[in-house]
Amino acid sequence: MDPKLGRMVSSVLAFLLLLDWGMFSPPPPPPGLLGKIFQYIDVHQDEFVQTLKEWVAVESDSVQPVPRLRQELLRMMVLAEERLRSLGAHVNAVNMGSQKLPDGQTLPIPPIILAELGNNPEKPTVCFYGHLDVQPARQADGWRTDPYTLTEVDGKLYGRGTTDNKGPVLAWINAVSTFRALDEDLPVNIKFIIEGMEEAGSLALEELVKKEKAGFFSNVDYIVISDNLWISQSKPALTYGTRGNSYFMVEVKCRDQDFHSGTFGGILNEPMADLVALLGSLVDSSGRILIPGIYDHVAPLTEEERKMYEAIDLDLEEYRHSSQMQKFLFDTKEELLMHLWRFPSLSIHGIEGAFDEPGAKTVIPGRVIGKFSIRLVPHMNMSVVEKQVKRHLESTFSKRNSSNQMTISMTLGLHPWIANIRDNQYLAAKRAIKTVFGTEPDMIRDGSTIPIAQIFQATIQKSVMMLPLGAVDDGEHSQNEKINRWNYIEGSKVFAAFFLEVAKLH
Amino acid sequence: MDPKLGRMVSSVLAFLLLLDWGMFSPPPPPPGLLGKIFQYIDVHQDEFVQTLKEWVAVESDSVQPVPRLRQELLRMMVLAEERLRSLGAHVNAVNMGSQKLPDGQTLPIPPIILAELGNNPEKPTVCFYGHLDVQPARQADGWRTDPYTLTEVDGKLYGRGTTDNKGPVLAWINAVSTFRALDEDLPVNIKFIIEGMEEAGSLALEELVKKEKAGFFSNVDYIVISDNLWISQSKPALTYGTRGNSYFMVEVKCRDQDFHSGTFGGILNEPMADLVALLGSLVDSSGRILIPGIYDHVAPLTEEERKMYEAIDLDLEEYRHSSQMQKFLFDTKEELLMHLWRFPSLSIHGIEGAFDEPGAKTVIPGRVIGKFSIRLVPHMNMSVVEKQVKRHLESTFSKRNSSNQMTISMTLGLHPWIANIRDNQYLAAKRAIKTVFGTEPDMIRDGSTIPIAQIFQATIQKSVMMLPLGAVDDGEHSQNEKINRWNYIEGSKVFAAFFLEVAKLH
Repeated sequence: MDPKLGRMVSSVLAFLLLLDWGMFSPPPPPPGLLGKIFQYIDVHQDEFVQTLKEWVAVESDSVQPVPRLRQELLRMMVLAEERLRSLGAHVNAVNMGSQKLPDGQTLPIPPIILAELGNNPEKPTVCFYGHLDVQPARQADGWRTDPYTLTEVDGKLYGRGTTDNKGPVLAWINAVSTFRALDEDLPVNIKFIIEGMEEAGSLALEELVKKEKAGFFSNVDYIVISDNLWISQSKPALTYGTRGNSYFMVEVKCRDQDFHSGTFGGILNEPMADLVALLGSLVDSSGRILIPGIYDHVAPLTEEERKMYEAIDLDLEEYRHSSQMQKFLFDTKEELLMHLWRFPSLSIHGIEGAFDEPGAKTVIPGRVIGKFSIRLVPHMNMSVVEKQVKRHLESTFSKRNSSNQMTISMTLGLHPWIANIRDNQYLAAKRAIKTVFGTEPDMIRDGSTIPIAQIFQATIQKSVMMLPLGAVDDGEHSQNEKINRWNYIEGSKVFAAFFLEVAKLH
Repeated sequence: MDPKLGRMVSSVLAFLLLLDWGMFSPPPPPPGLLGKIFQYIDVHQDEFVQTLKEWVAVESDSVQPVPRLRQELLRMMVLAEERLRSLGAHVNAVNMGSQKLPDGQTLPIPPIILAELGNNPEKPTVCFYGHLDVQPARQADGWRTDPYTLTEVDGKLYGRGTTDNKGPVLAWINAVSTFRALDEDLPVNIKFIIEGMEEAGSLALEELVKKEKAGFFSNVDYIVISDNLWISQSKPALTYGTRGNSYFMVEVKCRDQDFHSGTFGGILNEPMADLVALLGSLVDSSGRILIPGIYDHVAPLTEEERKMYEAIDLDLEEYRHSSQMQKFLFDTKEELLMHLWRFPSLSIHGIEGAFDEPGAKTVIPGRVIGKFSIRLVPHMNMSVVEKQVKRHLESTFSKRNSSNQMTISMTLGLHPWIANIRDNQYLAAKRAIKTVFGTEPDMIRDGSTIPIAQIFQATIQKSVMMLPLGAVDDGEHSQNEKINRWNYIEGSKVFAAFFLEVAKLH
């Protein structure tokens, strides 16, 4: 067959497959070692799914502070330790002590697993971060299948933790184990840091990372996190940035008790009137933040960056529809994504202390706390932002001449994270993805804050990459969470290919 | 003794007594029938206190929908019926059916008592409204004495319902019974309407008033309500107006579910931003309502009215202190009271649907409902106000160009009430007060809404007067509710004197 015609037929087939699966069709298998690896993974995929099934069966819920669930979580960590030891890794399950709950109860914090496989100074060292705890799930919440019994329907593997994050952790392990099974030398030194408290705020993780900076992490070159999703159902992605967040509370107080609006309405500076004026001064109806100076340090948009946005696979109509939105503030994919990822945003979350129930109550709240936060982007400086917000609110408040007291506090501050996408591991990952999926990845960011990436980058000062395996519709944290068999298995291949690519580039 | 000297001595004595009791001293007893009546009341005051004690002992709580308490309430109504019958009144306890609670439980509504004593077409007919149900009270809430055991300490009669409203109801009965005991002809026909659901929203009362308009109420000339307080600890008052209220809910909806501020912040018209802009457009920091036209129909201030405000007994510093306020919007007694009573006010009560709990949550509420109300004064028209509010909010919202949906509803509308203070019963009450207390009453209004006055006035179209007996510090609805023995006994005299005065003027 004429190679041109062949490519055409294969394109048409690919297109039909795409229609059928909603995914890109794989390119032909590569020759040599990688071919062997891919074949092994394809042949043994049911075993990989079986291990995922065993892991999903453990109700490792870290969110509900219940002794039974905490025991399940500890059992999950032991399963992972055993699996890593069976690969030949040196495993250290670091005891992180216990957690004291508000009610006085004490629960053990699951150990954080630090594991290593290979210690060849000639090879690069790649450290994988993952977590094995899950969000709560009950079938009664609207699951079509038992959340803790992995169930395959039409190529979708349903179960709590399949995509967040047990599937991706196992995909990495599958990649390593394939090299071991084929008795092939691992091209990189492998490290694992696996925790069990991610869904409960990664209790104790940062402390350990800092403590092990000069120890476990001293020879780490690259850190890979696979704990987010593509923004497409079919096109892979690499994530190179997340926004930070600074959370503010502004309290306006007249007195501690509330008033009756009949007996005091008309003679007070009402705290709610002050507060809505303060909150109303923060952002205009086009979404622009009105705090003076707030955009001063936002990184300018480069031409190269603009092109990355153009290449991203996002069907705006489909996105609008799946978000149940009538209309977004922006009409193009590029503007929309930039305002989610690379520009700051300000959201007003609510008010504490006012009347918040259904029905009518004629109260004048005596003391109210407005809550809002600003998603931060490079190169905004958190303490500068804090000063700008305080100055703006103080100036707005003083113009009102109110007799109430205003107090502003920044109660939470998380830095944005951005990676250098010209770094070797990004190049390696792009190549691995191209090899497995036959396409360049979407280069994406996350509009929300994933502190772990920033913690690793700031503490260990090594390149951090987020390489998601799951599709946009995986439903992490939601009912009927799933990972596609295709994503899980091809994802295992991507990791294996990544090991080879990063070794070549290093 | 020279009468001038005598008056001087009595003034000094009165002043000393005032210092001692914190009250005005009574003028010398009047001659004739009134003197006999006052003497009888003084001599029998312990009996009157004893009856109040028996009534306070009944836990006639209408607020908590508990069968045991409802039985107590029914027993209270029977006690009142018996007392009225013993005066020779014709008593009709009108069955008002039952109340269905949200949980499906059914509780009987206590009967409303319609009673009459005398039916002489030559005499005016005065109808007294009162209620015998009370707010909940438990000693554990901070009562120094058992709330259902009337306890006298330093001339103060502590107990739930003493001032609200069992004491005033009995004061009226005491006045009537004194005429009966002295075998004196009652100068007026007396009617009673006594309910047992006032603290639970006067369930079924309006229905009965409407039904009995041409029946029980057909020959009523004056309606007296004694269900509020003086604004002083020592100076009596007559209440001639209450503000109305129109309660608004403005909903801004993007979609039913909330959003995560990381994954959607920056690309939405956020409902909270729209809502704080809407709420922020309603009132300025001087308390002035910004809704165009809202002041158009507010009655102009007359010189006569201004003088009434000047005469009112209010220590601004003491008021500020007891309200735990740093500062009010106004510095003079007159401005303060006018803004509470005769000018409209707008209060923002709160927001439903936003984040209202302690702590930090990075939510973008998808649908929020702002709640505010306007206290209405004569001659504001409720449906005009409704239109003005809607027009203003619609105009403010349309300028924002938001893609959200806004819905406005007026969920509650209560008309203001104002009486003609030149009416005979007001003149009669002033004279009675002057006779008993030796002073002119404060002519006051109430900034809050007491629907019953407006209901009577609008339905029966007769003069309505509020003649409070209790002092400002009586603590209605609160712990350690009390009525001073002095207020209760002198109040009984005021009602007796009022009967005679109103008969003279009619």
